Amino acid sequence: MSPNNVASGARARARQAMRAEVATIVGDLVLERGYEQTTVDDICAAAEISRSTFFRYFPSKEDALFGQTADAGDDLRVALAARPDGETPWTAMRRALDPLIEKYEADDERTRRLTRLIVTTPALLARHQEKNARWHELLRPEVARRLGADPADRSDPRADAVIAAALGCVQAALTAWTVGDRPQSLPAILDRAMGPIAGRV
Amino acid sequence: MSPNNVASGARARARQAMRAEVATIVGDLVLERGYEQTTVDDICAAAEISRSTFFRYFPSKEDALFGQTADAGDDLRVALAARPDGETPWTAMRRALDPLIEKYEADDERTRRLTRLIVTTPALLARHQEKNARWHELLRPEVARRLGADPADRSDPRADAVIAAALGCVQAALTAWTVGDRPQSLPAILDRAMGPIAGRV
Repeated sequence: MSPNNVASGARARARQAMRAEVATIVGDLVLERGYEQTTVDDICAAAEISRSTFFRYFPSKEDALFGQTADAGDDLRVALAARPDGETPWTAMRRALDPLIEKYEADDERTRRLTRLIVTTPALLARHQEKNARWHELLRPEVARRLGADPADRSDPRADAVIAAALGCVQAALTAWTVGDRPQSLPAILDRAMGPIAGRV
Repeated sequence: MSPNNVASGARARARQAMRAEVATIVGDLVLERGYEQTTVDDICAAAEISRSTFFRYFPSKEDALFGQTADAGDDLRVALAARPDGETPWTAMRRALDPLIEKYEADDERTRRLTRLIVTTPALLARHQEKNARWHELLRPEVARRLGADPADRSDPRADAVIAAALGCVQAALTAWTVGDRPQSLPAILDRAMGPIAGRV
């Protein structure tokens, strides 16, 4: 690796760490004050950065809150590609979700409260659905391959249907998880949501 | 029925007819000029109504375009409730979609072009997803009943998962339908999208 590449690798890691740090601060603030009540200025004050720095990292407040989950789409794609070929697309998708779901579960109460906020705030739910659309694009080639479908043939609905169904189950599971005071285990809820559909996919 | 009820029934029918008429005009205009290029003033001029009349019928331009599909959620709920109890929730959902799908198919090229516009215009896709969320609420009690679930228990993800998966398949099928010059039959595409998932739901 040339010195330039080393430097640019270090810059990329620093940038990633900064994004994660700001996303955590945004999460803390919106949980404390509510989403509408948290301004970009509040975030900059708490993170001790300027507005121009904030906007170098994130196009908007919503993006800052979703900074980390957006990156999870790539992790999900990699996890899906790593599943054995013998698994059905549906089972491979369920198993590929394990690392993501375990991360939600590990950070339990905070993630649960943030998820509750997202599914009940229209602006955030809309952004969550945009993120789903990006994940859709990321996952299509691998799901199509597993179905024996041509990923470039957009007149074949099967890969999109499997992905939409799986992400729909994830959203149903996350919503169910945020209800009530004593949460069930998220992996168990996701099994319950995806299980009945597991028949032939 | 009292004379007042007769009059209010006639008013409701007139209102419904007016909404359908304006929705058709909005569809024609956006297909001709594009969505962003069509203003409420253009719509009022074409429909020969005032702006205040327009806004008595629709809160916004998007709502006017979706006027008819929003009402279809109620038809879908009624069709689902009418399916035999012996059908699985998934099969009942597929069959309940028949009248809606046949309506899309009957008005073939126009509906296909409008659907293409919706799935490729972010503002309209977002509205389409809001409409999905409303359909979700309408369908939950009946799907929960068929699953033997308590519709009031939001910690049970199953009814939401089945509905999200089915509506996800519908969207995948609609998108596939709008691709290419010689459309496949929409019911066949929906069967292809929902079929592999039909195993055990």
